[in-house]
Amino acid sequence: MGSIEKANGLAQDTILIISPGDPRQEIIDGIQSRHPGVKIHWNSMKETPLTVEDIPQNIWDTVTILWGFHVPADAVMPNLRFVQLSSAGADHWASNPHYQDPNTVFCTSNGAHPPQIAEWVIGSWLSHQHQFLKYSNYMKEGYWEPLFQTTFQDSWGLRMGILGYGAIGRQCANLAKALGMDVVAYTARERPTPESRKDDSYCVPGTGDPDGLIPSKWFHGTTQESVNHFLDQDLDIVVICLPLTASTRNMISRQQFEILAKKKTFLSNIARGGHVNTEDLIEALEKGMIRGAAVDVTNPEPLPKEHPLWKAPNLLITPHVSWSSTNHWSRVYAIFEHNLGVLAGNKGNFVNKVDKQRHY
Amino acid sequence: MGSIEKANGLAQDTILIISPGDPRQEIIDGIQSRHPGVKIHWNSMKETPLTVEDIPQNIWDTVTILWGFHVPADAVMPNLRFVQLSSAGADHWASNPHYQDPNTVFCTSNGAHPPQIAEWVIGSWLSHQHQFLKYSNYMKEGYWEPLFQTTFQDSWGLRMGILGYGAIGRQCANLAKALGMDVVAYTARERPTPESRKDDSYCVPGTGDPDGLIPSKWFHGTTQESVNHFLDQDLDIVVICLPLTASTRNMISRQQFEILAKKKTFLSNIARGGHVNTEDLIEALEKGMIRGAAVDVTNPEPLPKEHPLWKAPNLLITPHVSWSSTNHWSRVYAIFEHNLGVLAGNKGNFVNKVDKQRHY
Repeated sequence: MGSIEKANGLAQDTILIISPGDPRQEIIDGIQSRHPGVKIHWNSMKETPLTVEDIPQNIWDTVTILWGFHVPADAVMPNLRFVQLSSAGADHWASNPHYQDPNTVFCTSNGAHPPQIAEWVIGSWLSHQHQFLKYSNYMKEGYWEPLFQTTFQDSWGLRMGILGYGAIGRQCANLAKALGMDVVAYTARERPTPESRKDDSYCVPGTGDPDGLIPSKWFHGTTQESVNHFLDQDLDIVVICLPLTASTRNMISRQQFEILAKKKTFLSNIARGGHVNTEDLIEALEKGMIRGAAVDVTNPEPLPKEHPLWKAPNLLITPHVSWSSTNHWSRVYAIFEHNLGVLAGNKGNFVNKVDKQRHY
Repeated sequence: MGSIEKANGLAQDTILIISPGDPRQEIIDGIQSRHPGVKIHWNSMKETPLTVEDIPQNIWDTVTILWGFHVPADAVMPNLRFVQLSSAGADHWASNPHYQDPNTVFCTSNGAHPPQIAEWVIGSWLSHQHQFLKYSNYMKEGYWEPLFQTTFQDSWGLRMGILGYGAIGRQCANLAKALGMDVVAYTARERPTPESRKDDSYCVPGTGDPDGLIPSKWFHGTTQESVNHFLDQDLDIVVICLPLTASTRNMISRQQFEILAKKKTFLSNIARGGHVNTEDLIEALEKGMIRGAAVDVTNPEPLPKEHPLWKAPNLLITPHVSWSSTNHWSRVYAIFEHNLGVLAGNKGNFVNKVDKQRHY
């Protein structure tokens, strides 16, 4: 394998782009004009899920740089040196030999997702609080509810707890602040100083909280006890924005729902289904321990047709779409272009380089 | 009738409070401790709608100060000198003789509603953009939509037009800004200077845009042509926050939907149903001239069971509830308490005093 950084550009490199949608000539032309001699293969994922046979082995053999929305787990790329992910986490690569190769750099697209995911979080929260689904159902019957039948709680003065104060959590905080909410943050490591509260991942201009100024209080830890302590902070809504690791799997189970029951905390999960024990979530919703939940991720995923989670009350399920946006492409491309420059020998650091111990 | 301001407090006054919910002793005690000798009657609106007979005539006879959520139009109050409304507009009082009496001061509760109404506006917009209703329907069938089937447009870089940049419009702008949207404002009179862009109505701390700093561009006028010009500014969403007057009635009709069709502008109406021509709204939705709409107010209102608006596509109707909040009471009370102090002879001006020519 080649070294990560070459002063002579990408003339020896082959980029494989695996992406939904037809090849975008302006992107291909842009890369080739900035990096003369680079070869680019574009697979439009006409087949979903893509299998290793959908791309000829002679292409897998020559790939040095991969930009992939979805990559077959059994693809063997002997010359791979750089992977640009289109997801914010890398946990789905953890068992892949390419990931375990210390010479292959992985970068996430952390920061490309916060605007749309935070919209999903705040939109589903407000939908619940303002009971839009009930009124949609009333429309079918032509029922105009009389005055003063329903009590609504607006968000001003309520408290949002954010488990994982990265790029996504920070835009959730920015929206919550505009609603007049109090925000408290939880991170794995302690953030005692202003400098430590900053986030250096890609940030869409005008969004987020890159300097970490919004939370009124910071919590930290890597144990279930520290998570439990955070959940016990009178939260009206808790948003899971953590990567899935061995220590965060099933972090919200029966014991945690019992803590959340004190305030009937709304649960929002846009991270991974494995963070939440599904049976315990169903029980918490059915018993009214929490006021409701919105989950864009489930365990198992996809959720089978007959799974009881579909029927749990006060729940919105969406099929892992909160990351999706017509702007997503251009945001990931901005990150990829920067990282290609670093690969070609430009000064500067990779944006969003994965720490392979933490998978993000 | 007495003069508006008395240096000797409210000892000669009788306050009638008409409000849903049981009498709140802490409010009664608070008023009586600050204004010794004042008499207070509290009607809890057990009957809805309240009629003039629900309150004895000898109480109507003695009322000097009224705080009413809903007041029978035919109530005669010979000693009335001050009315604290619980609504942001006063148009429903326009034909009432008490309103026409120049010695009776009316104050709105402008500023008590923006947090919850702006949540309603942004929540219904995000629900539409992220297609929550579709996914709720998929849940009934246990259908997990495969990857890449749906395209979502996030709000970053989109443009919100706000018709009427008062207290409510300003909190809509504050939320839109946090989403990364561009905001343009329309007001009746020109706002050419920083001073003229300020708003002096009651403002819930940490919300809104009291200094008028958010809009990237300001438009103004009182003619249909000036409204049409504003609607033609490539708006992704337009929010109606104007009072209903003769010149704003039916301001969104077929011609305006033809303008909005260029960008398929989403229509959000939290003002009055009379601003929008209902037949033309149905046509615009059925023909896909606009991408969707959310209306908390309709014309007629309540909307009859068999009305065709209930069945229009891409529409959310709620039954005039967007103003409602568990915090509404305490916000209106804060305004009322301030105004009672002015009535009692304290220095300062009434908050939210109605201009009876403009009804707000």
